[in-house]
Amino acid sequence: MERDIDATVISAEVGVPEAPDELRRLRQSIDNFDSAIIHILAERFKISQRVGELKAELGLPPADKDRERAQIARLRQLADDAQLDPQFAEDLLSFIVTTVVRNHERIRERDSSADLVNPASTR
Amino acid sequence: MERDIDATVISAEVGVPEAPDELRRLRQSIDNFDSAIIHILAERFKISQRVGELKAELGLPPADKDRERAQIARLRQLADDAQLDPQFAEDLLSFIVTTVVRNHERIRERDSSADLVNPASTR
Repeated sequence: MERDIDATVISAEVGVPEAPDELRRLRQSIDNFDSAIIHILAERFKISQRVGELKAELGLPPADKDRERAQIARLRQLADDAQLDPQFAEDLLSFIVTTVVRNHERIRERDSSADLVNPASTR
Repeated sequence: MERDIDATVISAEVGVPEAPDELRRLRQSIDNFDSAIIHILAERFKISQRVGELKAELGLPPADKDRERAQIARLRQLADDAQLDPQFAEDLLSFIVTTVVRNHERIRERDSSADLVNPASTR
């Protein structure tokens, strides 16, 4: 890759056309990692959506503190092994779980309203 | 895979040994996706660490609002294409960027203290 051909013109990463060449390359990698994360999360949420539906069918509560505690411990250990700040991993999981639990509550409420319309439906 | 061998005993996902079989399998997938995300983030932060050092060397500020705006627009579009809530993608990026900027500030402060010890060093 040629590096000295006017980085101010050929820069392709988003947002900062005047960024120096190395910064530009690093940001392209960050953009690639972020794309990967978005796509993994999209699949993760398809599954947690199904978990929410299943919990509603089984009458289980949207949040599960034991499961969350175990997830936190596991991810902190993984983060530590990968030289990522374990506190960051924990905060990130909390952020994701908060969103998921909110969705599970929405599913449960939706199912409850369905019961109002059709009281014979099983919960 | 045999599914009816007492799911209450063979359950392997973290935290909820008594979870029904389907819930158990879904959670194993969630755990796998979370592991992937942790490992990608570990690599992403190695790169953003280098971005922070480079910004400090070049005297660039830790935060870059134009770059962040462009990242948000890009990730919202990717999320939308992947059927992930674009607002969630935006909130997640903000969460990550807040951590990264805090790290960049720490790098800059560390470099500034080095200047105090050795005032001849370039910033």
